[in-house]
Amino acid sequence: MLQKTKRLTLVEQVALQMESLIESGEWAVGMRIPAEPELMAELNVSRNTLREAIRALIHAGLLKTKQGDGTYVCSASVLGVVLQKRILRSDTLQTLEVRHALEREAAHLAAQRRTSDEANELLLQLERWEAAARGDMDGFVTEDIRLHQSIIAASHNEILIELYNHITEASQDLITSLTRYEAGADFLEMHRQLVEAIVDQDADRAVAAVHRYIAESKAVLEVKGGERL
Amino acid sequence: MLQKTKRLTLVEQVALQMESLIESGEWAVGMRIPAEPELMAELNVSRNTLREAIRALIHAGLLKTKQGDGTYVCSASVLGVVLQKRILRSDTLQTLEVRHALEREAAHLAAQRRTSDEANELLLQLERWEAAARGDMDGFVTEDIRLHQSIIAASHNEILIELYNHITEASQDLITSLTRYEAGADFLEMHRQLVEAIVDQDADRAVAAVHRYIAESKAVLEVKGGERL
Repeated sequence: MLQKTKRLTLVEQVALQMESLIESGEWAVGMRIPAEPELMAELNVSRNTLREAIRALIHAGLLKTKQGDGTYVCSASVLGVVLQKRILRSDTLQTLEVRHALEREAAHLAAQRRTSDEANELLLQLERWEAAARGDMDGFVTEDIRLHQSIIAASHNEILIELYNHITEASQDLITSLTRYEAGADFLEMHRQLVEAIVDQDADRAVAAVHRYIAESKAVLEVKGGERL
Repeated sequence: MLQKTKRLTLVEQVALQMESLIESGEWAVGMRIPAEPELMAELNVSRNTLREAIRALIHAGLLKTKQGDGTYVCSASVLGVVLQKRILRSDTLQTLEVRHALEREAAHLAAQRRTSDEANELLLQLERWEAAARGDMDGFVTEDIRLHQSIIAASHNEILIELYNHITEASQDLITSLTRYEAGADFLEMHRQLVEAIVDQDADRAVAAVHRYIAESKAVLEVKGGERL
């Protein structure tokens, strides 16, 4: 009985060690993890212990085995994997509402906390975003995500940033579909107002701007929802 | 090679099956899961396969082995476990800001979507909450969490509800410490305004009320933060 417990703990220790290598980025997403003999020697554990630890991380969604090839890192964050799964079985409107909750809070905090470097970067990103709005849709979607991520980053709230980025990643398709309908002049103006309010450190104006484009996004979703965004 | 892959998949299948028993509540939190022989027969798998699947769920934080006793369900949701871990290594202010983001959105949505039953329940809960404010602190904390959860529930947004409830669970200590300073007359009045605005289906007034008690909570945190809430 004692031995069994000890062995369990060892698997868990090895799994946690590998998890922290992945979360720290030392084992980057897309990388093949070292071969079994190498890991066994490095971690000083048996083949069985190592394999069980790897299976725990496969179950957690961090690793993936490619048959006849090896084991690859497929996600850097357990929170990301879990949120992704949760978002996949949610309806579009609910996902959008959660993103908006985080965007509204972030606009408020960013107005209070943005550094001067961040203010400059936001204005530059706004220009790139406006330029992209005149180009192809893929480019615009990319710049749109970057603009929102810069605003979230300026909130200096790490949990908010992580939740937002994971949810954005998980709802990439939704964002792409919605953005397609959002490159109109009104929408551009609301985002300019948002960025300018953050730069001016005016939290109320920033939140009001978010409020306006949220109403616009929801209206788009109601009209276009039938086309299965 | 083929056999190894097949075996991996089997462990994963068994783990997912048990995970869904747990998430559905069929295996409730606190329950001891059936003994190995029973599960082996029911799932038609070997002891090794079963044990590995159980270890994956232990790693995920859903199960826990008590030495010499058995394996118990210790959490119903992977998302809950992961958020809990994330919140534990965050600072208090950041956690509070994420809760507020969700509360503000929920107030807005609840005003738009609450049913008449929910409106009645909210008014009843407000009365219980006000009565508890005159009693002991533990009772008030309990009623305060219930009041906020009723508001979130009336948003009818499942992701918002899950995120909020997990974060609340993870930050119970913080909430208890803050609530201790919040039972004053102003705070009571702001919550009454919030509930009344939701009952009146006035989203703007609801959000404004949340806004006011958030400012109040943050002020409390700034003043009392030094005492290590």
